[in-house]
Amino acid sequence: MNPTGGGRRLLVRDLEQLATPAGTSAPLRGGELAEVNVIEDAYALCAGGSIEGVGRMRDLPRLDGEVEEIDGRGLCAIPGLVDCHTHACFAGDRVEEFALRASGASYEELHAAGGGIMSTVRATRAAGPDELAAAVCKHRRWMLRAGTTTFESKSGYGLDRDTELASLQAIRNEGGIPTWLGAHAVPPEYDDADAYLDFILTEVLPDAAGLAEAADVFVERGAFDAGQARRYLSACADAGLALRLHADQFTEQGAVALAIELGARSVDHLEATGAEGVAALGASDVAAVLLPASALFLARPMPPARALVEAGAIVALATDFNPGSAFCESLPLVCSLAATQLKLSPAEALAACTVNAAHVLGRSKRLGRLASGYDADIVLLDAPDWRYLAYHLGGNLVTNIILQGELAELG
Amino acid sequence: MNPTGGGRRLLVRDLEQLATPAGTSAPLRGGELAEVNVIEDAYALCAGGSIEGVGRMRDLPRLDGEVEEIDGRGLCAIPGLVDCHTHACFAGDRVEEFALRASGASYEELHAAGGGIMSTVRATRAAGPDELAAAVCKHRRWMLRAGTTTFESKSGYGLDRDTELASLQAIRNEGGIPTWLGAHAVPPEYDDADAYLDFILTEVLPDAAGLAEAADVFVERGAFDAGQARRYLSACADAGLALRLHADQFTEQGAVALAIELGARSVDHLEATGAEGVAALGASDVAAVLLPASALFLARPMPPARALVEAGAIVALATDFNPGSAFCESLPLVCSLAATQLKLSPAEALAACTVNAAHVLGRSKRLGRLASGYDADIVLLDAPDWRYLAYHLGGNLVTNIILQGELAELG
Repeated sequence: MNPTGGGRRLLVRDLEQLATPAGTSAPLRGGELAEVNVIEDAYALCAGGSIEGVGRMRDLPRLDGEVEEIDGRGLCAIPGLVDCHTHACFAGDRVEEFALRASGASYEELHAAGGGIMSTVRATRAAGPDELAAAVCKHRRWMLRAGTTTFESKSGYGLDRDTELASLQAIRNEGGIPTWLGAHAVPPEYDDADAYLDFILTEVLPDAAGLAEAADVFVERGAFDAGQARRYLSACADAGLALRLHADQFTEQGAVALAIELGARSVDHLEATGAEGVAALGASDVAAVLLPASALFLARPMPPARALVEAGAIVALATDFNPGSAFCESLPLVCSLAATQLKLSPAEALAACTVNAAHVLGRSKRLGRLASGYDADIVLLDAPDWRYLAYHLGGNLVTNIILQGELAELG
Repeated sequence: MNPTGGGRRLLVRDLEQLATPAGTSAPLRGGELAEVNVIEDAYALCAGGSIEGVGRMRDLPRLDGEVEEIDGRGLCAIPGLVDCHTHACFAGDRVEEFALRASGASYEELHAAGGGIMSTVRATRAAGPDELAAAVCKHRRWMLRAGTTTFESKSGYGLDRDTELASLQAIRNEGGIPTWLGAHAVPPEYDDADAYLDFILTEVLPDAAGLAEAADVFVERGAFDAGQARRYLSACADAGLALRLHADQFTEQGAVALAIELGARSVDHLEATGAEGVAALGASDVAAVLLPASALFLARPMPPARALVEAGAIVALATDFNPGSAFCESLPLVCSLAATQLKLSPAEALAACTVNAAHVLGRSKRLGRLASGYDADIVLLDAPDWRYLAYHLGGNLVTNIILQGELAELG
């Protein structure tokens, strides 16, 4: 720390606790995931969008120059949360489908009632670029209010050239990290998945690769099989995109093995992953992104989180925010579900939606920790102990957000 | 409605929807539970703490006199939520126990680490009346921000004369509806449950009966058996208190049959209730209060909600807000759990935490509906469809609360 550094700074003082994943390495695996540094009676000092230092109040150096102060009494600071798996670019909603499912409607009945992904595709295609931009902006504000300072969002509700590209652009414009989910589903104007892949790889990929950082594919019965996923992902890798897969949500279809073979960043979902897949991920560098809010929303089995941690896998948590299977933007709720349903400790949950999520997005050198040199993205919780993040189920915990060193408007 | 009525009024205008349980009767059973009246492009007019009328904007009469207006565009109105089962009067927290449980600690290990009800009893006894009052006040504000305009709270973390009475007084002072849960657990200074009951029925009941509206007992292995519950509840009924029971949370101990025999207001929990108990409740006037946030928090089986509705039981929903087994004050989250885990439709969930919850508290003539003559307790949701109450999992939905005809400060 440079106590005489110039320029305007922001000091959060007298915090009950400041909690941050320990160490400096990323990603975290196994026992590392549970190591959290907790500083009692703490401060965090931000300068120029970065963290200048954190520590105990009694060790706070004398600060010259202009310093804005935030009173941290009664509050705990944690790193800004990183949501590495959302589908935040969509129009319309699926509340009718939700109500029908709650009343016991079968998948077939929902489909007959006009539900499913295609209902969102219709609404998203019908929306113009302005409406899409407004939707992503609204969802970004929701996420921020819940403590998410960095979000990834996939396209995938356009499934045509214009809407896919407009989606990626809207996500970029709102500061999101765009993932091209061209292979989300086969749209009705195509007879089969291969013909659709011909189209998107020829007509959409060249421009999508200039907008997105990664490509993603839904490997599942009724969507894309492992062979089709291989073709799609290989072409996307050639175009310079990182690779991700929706894997084993309902059934195991070989997506885990494919991801390892192709060196993907992550496999996401894994509710249906068995012991073999768990062991393979434990021995690999492919992150396992778990989405318990989706499992809860659909009343499906939870993913084998504890087994993945024990096997040494890189475990991350995300919301899966989307209108059909997880209308939930709250990473604090995901942390509560991790602690109650996935048998992850609050410390493991914190690491999984900060450091490890940042790793999945290729940003773990700047995001996910409260330490000197990291981006000054800080969440202040109205709690006497940072573990209320998971403990206070459905609580309205987030009182303030510091985004790139500035107090954010949560409105 | 009297369009020329005098005095200051509050008009919420241009609402997307106004939703209220249909009809005028209470409690609601079976198919009645799913009947919700939805008015599109609606208004709600409040006067003198009551609802003067609701309807379509095109039918809004000319209003003379002073009228404060709230712009309801983009918002939906539902009745103020009624939380009929909370334990909101406690000091301290159980975050350490929560973290240990998430990490796989057994019940015995938690107990050895100082966890369990007795740790909250120690903290609550150590708190003075001012600290208890401050705690209830904080919890009331949390509940209000989540849309709860009427709350019941039990005592039960004192288990001595002074703390039990101070708890009931603190709950009353904050506008809560107090229930005396003298028989929550046997405190360490008593050798057995019967000796403890001798004490509370002799030394505490006479004064508790002047402060509380109902009495409650935890019927479970390790707490009180059905015979002890009968003795406690009979004495409380003689003192003029309504009766409630914590029943079948972990094991069936005869609490349902006892509740029916004694004409209790409700049996609460029911996670372990079998077909016989469901049928008995369906044929009775004892309400079944379901607490899915508690089941989620403890990763326990969900109560047989659908079977209870089909059997014709009076089903209500509540949070069970408490520091050990459900640190959750959010009835919107409970509605999401009802729709995803209990197979209740959003309409059934709404009725269960408005009209039927008001019935459990003996207040269904004034609370639980948005209709002329009811109390003007209204929740405004930031949503295009009122069913977002259940659909928007963990969402920050509640934008405004009208409490007794006045806009409340949510701070």
